[in-house]
Amino acid sequence: MTVNSSRFLADLHALRDFGRDGQGVRRRAFSDPDLAARAWLADRMAEAGLTPHFDPVGNLFGLVPGQSLLLGSHSDTQPEGGWLDGALGVIAALEVARASLEADGRAISVVSFQDEEGRFGALTGSSVWSGKLNLAAADALVATDGTQFSDARARLAARASDFVDPARFVGFLEMHIEQGPVLDQAGDTIGVVTGIVGLRQFQITVKGEQNHAGTTPMAMRRDAFVAVTRIATLLEDRLANIATPKTVWTIGHLRLEPNASSIVPGRAVFMLQWRDADAERLQRIEEAIQGVLAEVQGGTGCAITFERLRQDLAPMPMDDMMQAELAKAAKRVAPGQWRSMPSGALHDASNVAALMPVGMLFVPSINGISHAFEEDTAEDDLVIGLKVLAEAASRLAPL
Amino acid sequence: MTVNSSRFLADLHALRDFGRDGQGVRRRAFSDPDLAARAWLADRMAEAGLTPHFDPVGNLFGLVPGQSLLLGSHSDTQPEGGWLDGALGVIAALEVARASLEADGRAISVVSFQDEEGRFGALTGSSVWSGKLNLAAADALVATDGTQFSDARARLAARASDFVDPARFVGFLEMHIEQGPVLDQAGDTIGVVTGIVGLRQFQITVKGEQNHAGTTPMAMRRDAFVAVTRIATLLEDRLANIATPKTVWTIGHLRLEPNASSIVPGRAVFMLQWRDADAERLQRIEEAIQGVLAEVQGGTGCAITFERLRQDLAPMPMDDMMQAELAKAAKRVAPGQWRSMPSGALHDASNVAALMPVGMLFVPSINGISHAFEEDTAEDDLVIGLKVLAEAASRLAPL
Repeated sequence: MTVNSSRFLADLHALRDFGRDGQGVRRRAFSDPDLAARAWLADRMAEAGLTPHFDPVGNLFGLVPGQSLLLGSHSDTQPEGGWLDGALGVIAALEVARASLEADGRAISVVSFQDEEGRFGALTGSSVWSGKLNLAAADALVATDGTQFSDARARLAARASDFVDPARFVGFLEMHIEQGPVLDQAGDTIGVVTGIVGLRQFQITVKGEQNHAGTTPMAMRRDAFVAVTRIATLLEDRLANIATPKTVWTIGHLRLEPNASSIVPGRAVFMLQWRDADAERLQRIEEAIQGVLAEVQGGTGCAITFERLRQDLAPMPMDDMMQAELAKAAKRVAPGQWRSMPSGALHDASNVAALMPVGMLFVPSINGISHAFEEDTAEDDLVIGLKVLAEAASRLAPL
Repeated sequence: MTVNSSRFLADLHALRDFGRDGQGVRRRAFSDPDLAARAWLADRMAEAGLTPHFDPVGNLFGLVPGQSLLLGSHSDTQPEGGWLDGALGVIAALEVARASLEADGRAISVVSFQDEEGRFGALTGSSVWSGKLNLAAADALVATDGTQFSDARARLAARASDFVDPARFVGFLEMHIEQGPVLDQAGDTIGVVTGIVGLRQFQITVKGEQNHAGTTPMAMRRDAFVAVTRIATLLEDRLANIATPKTVWTIGHLRLEPNASSIVPGRAVFMLQWRDADAERLQRIEEAIQGVLAEVQGGTGCAITFERLRQDLAPMPMDDMMQAELAKAAKRVAPGQWRSMPSGALHDASNVAALMPVGMLFVPSINGISHAFEEDTAEDDLVIGLKVLAEAASRLAPL
């Protein structure tokens, strides 16, 4: 098969026009631009000889008959999204399936999952399709604007059929922008994803004693913020012995009470999140964190408690054979300019991995920027990504 | 002169009833309860033989003819105030002046300053009287509820006369609750204030780089919150060499941006405040802080800037003779149960010190609590405070 890069780029730019805002895109799941984009995409699929199929939650498939390899990603965006993100993987899938049909080649189907960006939950469309979330639970989800998922998906009811049987697919490949700085800074063009990292998160509450910042001597204080800084500092020290260069941890959210410049903080509530591709390491980090919290509680006299605010996400390794084929293709198309790497962000592939063998490949994000209007990737890199995907797909798809 | 402690306590409880809420009081400057309390207080002054005098900004004096020693504090409260705070110093002053008149003794006048608690500014009444703030500037001040100072003070216009000439007073003594834990924890009854500490404050802005908390390796981050924790940790180390046990510094207010658990903070803005009774030490601390900021900027790659958000408050030492007389009285009335100490909180005395010699004494705050409904002091300690004030006043007031 021979992919047509101009046609691929033209379609990618055509999709960008749905919800376009400057360089970026506003195309939330089930918004008018999203529905228009899905209708347009269904037409492109039909033109290519694929059978468009909307399932009950808005996932749009472009199917070939019989067993096939599934390629795709998602075409919804963040409220202020970049133009590539999931769109890239959807249009690349379309081009590869189309080129394969033109070449009378392998059986390749296409998907654009719905609400990957979590207007309602997180990866809503692929979560329902993969059985992780049941439809009744999904229907009860409510967006921050008050819209309920059941009402949102009703907007596509006229076009919707049943869920597609996952058994018709031999595997799934997703191409995506990296959404991080690693490839860009290293000057590499392709990342073959080894796995999607797992994530754990604690909400930690530090209860100290609220005092007047003028009249309370330092030695008599139980300052909740001082305890937070001790926790953060000790963590850096303790996690250094456990972390690999790919382990990350973040305190991204913090609230002080009463948060006034002349009052010693009586309470601090913050989120501590850590991610790693290795489940055992996630656990060791958790134990180190608990040790630090106990130590700081003892040292400061503050009462420190934690709770798990969101469900742990287990690391999801990519299929070995899929990785091997992607690596082989990368070696041929982009020799010396590719690497294996974990995905620090979540993707639909993580859900689909419950159903079939899954592989992912990344192209660089300029300056590591994503989920922002400025998100971009060099055109040459987009085309190299397309070619790697096509080459791997042509070896993995059934005849 | 002999003070009457039951009459003193009865008046103190009577004043508490204006704006009372449970154990505490809501008596903001120029609120209905404040105006009613001032009218009541003017009547008590007149009954005692003092001449009540409202000045244009609501300060209420109870005057004796000729030269006198001025005693007092303020009778307005925080939105949710304690029952003692400034009220204690006002009623103690009333009792001492009254007892002195009854004994045909020394010339003692009384004052209740207005808006010490800063509904409009900070120490508004004594700031205008002392010349620190001119009346036109005060009139432009607006409370958080939208009330302008000029309109608030108009509520007392019918009773108001001119400003009282400060030259009629030979000095000023203010009795106050400590508002901190030092006396309570030490088991002491009286604090003779050596000075009111100075205060400096920086608003510090840390500009890092906002990133995805999953896809950005630790080594590639410029995390604004990590920089804040480094600043706080280094400060503890560096200030240890400069601070005395009475030096305090506080990070009480902090805002992270975007403050989301899955995003590396791109920006942090926080307040760093430090207080000390010694001006030279305040300056050395400032230099150490600037050194730490430069060091962390170099170490983290974050851009760190600061600005002075409020005017520096210079330390205000209390008059030596006033301190000596208060100490002599404390030694007699509360032998072995008093100490010299700075005031970590601001008081009207700080303004009045621009006009005349000033002294202050403290009684304990149970558990160090103030500016809260639970604020309290043991009745015995209130009476001991009254007696120390009376004894010192009887030596300092003119015949």
